[in-house]
Amino acid sequence: MSGSLRIIPLGGYGEVGRNMTVIEYDGAIIVVDCGLMFPEGDMPGVDLVVPNFTYLADNVERVLGYFITHGHEDHHGALPYVLPHAPAPIYATRLTRGFIEVKLKEHRLLGSAEIVTIAAGETIEVGPFRVEPFRVGHSIPDAVGFAVDTPLGLVLHSGEYKFDLTPVSGKSTDLHALAAYGQRGVLALMADSTNAERHGHTPSESVVREALEHVFERAEGRIILATFASNISRVQEVVNVAEDFGRKVGLAGRSMEQNIAMARNLGYLEAAEGTLVGLKELDALPDDEVVVCCTGTQGEPTSALVRMANDTHRDLSLRPGDTVILSATPIPGNEELVHRTIDNLFRRGAHVVYQSLMPVHVSGHASREEMKLLLKLVSPRYFIPAGGEYRMLVLHAELAESLGMPPEDVFVVESGEVVAFDGNGARRDGTVPGGYIYVDGLGVGDIGEVVLRDRNHLARDGFVVVVVAVDRQSAALAREPEILTRGFVFLPEAGELIAELRAYVADLVAQEHGSHDALIGRIRSGLGDLVNKRTGRRPMVLPMVIDV
Amino acid sequence: MSGSLRIIPLGGYGEVGRNMTVIEYDGAIIVVDCGLMFPEGDMPGVDLVVPNFTYLADNVERVLGYFITHGHEDHHGALPYVLPHAPAPIYATRLTRGFIEVKLKEHRLLGSAEIVTIAAGETIEVGPFRVEPFRVGHSIPDAVGFAVDTPLGLVLHSGEYKFDLTPVSGKSTDLHALAAYGQRGVLALMADSTNAERHGHTPSESVVREALEHVFERAEGRIILATFASNISRVQEVVNVAEDFGRKVGLAGRSMEQNIAMARNLGYLEAAEGTLVGLKELDALPDDEVVVCCTGTQGEPTSALVRMANDTHRDLSLRPGDTVILSATPIPGNEELVHRTIDNLFRRGAHVVYQSLMPVHVSGHASREEMKLLLKLVSPRYFIPAGGEYRMLVLHAELAESLGMPPEDVFVVESGEVVAFDGNGARRDGTVPGGYIYVDGLGVGDIGEVVLRDRNHLARDGFVVVVVAVDRQSAALAREPEILTRGFVFLPEAGELIAELRAYVADLVAQEHGSHDALIGRIRSGLGDLVNKRTGRRPMVLPMVIDV
Repeated sequence: MSGSLRIIPLGGYGEVGRNMTVIEYDGAIIVVDCGLMFPEGDMPGVDLVVPNFTYLADNVERVLGYFITHGHEDHHGALPYVLPHAPAPIYATRLTRGFIEVKLKEHRLLGSAEIVTIAAGETIEVGPFRVEPFRVGHSIPDAVGFAVDTPLGLVLHSGEYKFDLTPVSGKSTDLHALAAYGQRGVLALMADSTNAERHGHTPSESVVREALEHVFERAEGRIILATFASNISRVQEVVNVAEDFGRKVGLAGRSMEQNIAMARNLGYLEAAEGTLVGLKELDALPDDEVVVCCTGTQGEPTSALVRMANDTHRDLSLRPGDTVILSATPIPGNEELVHRTIDNLFRRGAHVVYQSLMPVHVSGHASREEMKLLLKLVSPRYFIPAGGEYRMLVLHAELAESLGMPPEDVFVVESGEVVAFDGNGARRDGTVPGGYIYVDGLGVGDIGEVVLRDRNHLARDGFVVVVVAVDRQSAALAREPEILTRGFVFLPEAGELIAELRAYVADLVAQEHGSHDALIGRIRSGLGDLVNKRTGRRPMVLPMVIDV
Repeated sequence: MSGSLRIIPLGGYGEVGRNMTVIEYDGAIIVVDCGLMFPEGDMPGVDLVVPNFTYLADNVERVLGYFITHGHEDHHGALPYVLPHAPAPIYATRLTRGFIEVKLKEHRLLGSAEIVTIAAGETIEVGPFRVEPFRVGHSIPDAVGFAVDTPLGLVLHSGEYKFDLTPVSGKSTDLHALAAYGQRGVLALMADSTNAERHGHTPSESVVREALEHVFERAEGRIILATFASNISRVQEVVNVAEDFGRKVGLAGRSMEQNIAMARNLGYLEAAEGTLVGLKELDALPDDEVVVCCTGTQGEPTSALVRMANDTHRDLSLRPGDTVILSATPIPGNEELVHRTIDNLFRRGAHVVYQSLMPVHVSGHASREEMKLLLKLVSPRYFIPAGGEYRMLVLHAELAESLGMPPEDVFVVESGEVVAFDGNGARRDGTVPGGYIYVDGLGVGDIGEVVLRDRNHLARDGFVVVVVAVDRQSAALAREPEILTRGFVFLPEAGELIAELRAYVADLVAQEHGSHDALIGRIRSGLGDLVNKRTGRRPMVLPMVIDV
């Protein structure tokens, strides 16, 4: 009991997505999840955001393994970016491993990665930890949480779960395991906070089954259903309903095809012989025997659904009579793109069904009453809300307090904030590097706040570059100043303004006899003010003075 | 009955906000509403979006008046931009006039504008039209719809309405007037589609009253309530509840102060002597006697609420014990900013109450059952869904069809699409210029798709400007090429890359002996490819070749 246990959230605490938690005992580190998130509105040009893995990279010899809860990208998608800097074995259930392998292969890292298949109910010994995965029900099969036995006590991470007692495919959260952990005594619980704003109990997947049946019963033409490429359970439901209604199912989009093939190979998707067919074969079928499963629920511009909505899909062209089902909700920040996609689907004459109209999607996350149930079953000594934006963490903490937990035993912590445990209890214990690392093109971590600030500035008002060629001898203008601008004014109609700016700069050069730096400074501020006076805008003004 | 009637939506049909409808009979034009909208995510730097008013500007001598339904900016906020190009009298109820005057004064247009005060139940004769405003209940007092009598028949515009039978302040939609119009016979109805995705009936404002009482009962410290500065009814409720609970109300934010002062002067906001106090006076009161009404429900960076959330407000600093109420929902597209604001309010230790948790806001728009009621009461011959994004128009149209209207009598039209009526019926009849006009700084309509495309490109990947000074005589490089870049890479760490780009350009110049244009073309494509190979990014590459 002499050692020290530290829990360090590196992502998924205070934000959506990008889940990663460090559990450390006497220097030995295991990591639960290694997820990414998609950039927010003020991160233009960023492709992906991964957790700040500096702490792992700096302590690479102490990292003993990555334990991945399930196959969603916000839980394993950062592995290709983190592994090269902090390699360690990956522990995952069979289907989750399948998803990870698809990703690592894309990044040519599959050969060098060590992956260990685990299953709920097993015990994995890693350094001072005994890790027991336990089954949780989520919107993807084969999801688990982890009970991590440490010399100081049992630490539980819920993963993402709901208590769906009538799941259509996949399995329910293991109530008995949770109850048994509660009996054994749990030192600390980390649990998913995503739906801490939702009262009651998240509806069962069986509700979706009923809604799909309702739509299939009434659809006279083709049915196109969009969902996440990783939502194997949803595709399973579609396959089941399609079989009941005598329809064949085609898959559109590379990620959808890849994932379903993988899930089928591993036995996680069951379809009768002949139910799943190629897109080409669908063409030969009558419309009322066709279902297409595709991606695009987030309005992603290159997805199959958005291409159909814009009538730019190579193989699929929507027509009146088609029914389109969006079986997902917009991730916060994607609402505009999603709404635009739905509008365009309607413009093609399709009948569109989405969650505002009918329960064709349910959340995979526990709502408040389920959160209470988890807290009661597990009865932890300490509680750390995980997996949610800051307000959700606070609401989850307040919920735990409403069940009787003393506020000082509940830790609302964000990326990089350490909670330390010893024989005397738990306390906040400083920070390690937290926050974001941006992936942009081939660069991982090479752009940061400076570049993003510039991009946001350029987005608002564009730029004005002024090139002043000065004669080396006379310090006089060697030629007219050149002005180059984009994103500021519509050039074909701005000739007069540009001429005024040129003349203004020429005047400045004639007056200024100091250094180039002084001249640059005067042009920047003087031109900025003039531009603002004329247009009310504040483009980035970048003077360049060259000697010739 | 010989004339021709045309209805032309210029905004608010197929999008949110920016409402404007032209009603034209034998050349005479009246305009219902003249609203603006706030820019969407792919319109960076744009301050406001107004309807394309080209048709009005081109036919200015035929524009007889603007009839404004209510005091929200998406219904009158474009007047300052449109009036200078198409001046005509403005017809508005007293409170709506108050809002318009505030706006016109800001733009120094109040002196030149002609405003006529109207009231529900009156008849205004304008050219061939007899216009009758009728009372509607909405989230602002003194709102009306318009019944426009034309020689071809009665045209009804609902404005924005709900059937709230127990409004807390303000009045209900005039059921009897609508029934009477239905009896008289209505040629065409245009009606608000905003909530066409919502089943049932929009809750009454009295629900908000109850939620506020619940919060006031439990709050031990100060209460800060954020709502729209135009939401006079909500502020009235806050004043009422505050008086019941012995609290004083202060106003934070210029627009909030201005609007409330105006509404109070006109008698639309009632408060006991001493209930409304200055912010400074609040400081002297115990926390449990304080309410602050402020703006910022959309996460606007300069609003009072966001300043408090970021702890940068001059006069108000949040502290644990404060209760903050967000009494509004995010306008689509603002979700990220709103969520970030709520997160930061929690970070300050405040107790935050918002709609996901408690009904501290209800919509001002009719839901599907109310839409059916309106359609039944009015029983129009033709129906044109108005005021909503495209999917909402379609859903509203389908709703009308579900009540028995033949699909050919329902017109889903977007900005600029004309519906023409004559003795034989109604038909689509071509288009007039529609779409957006952007306001950016002082410019109205001077930036368009080209500039926005550039801004979006700059936002994603930044730019690289290359300046090549070539000797006039020898056509050789007069000096090393200069590279200027922003938003592309973090410069302090990109020295090697920049050096490579310079060397590459120098090589190109040495090889290329054609025109400057040819050289520019080669630099642009060659450098673009090289940059992409090294970084995976596609910045805007802008070469400039100057002779010296």
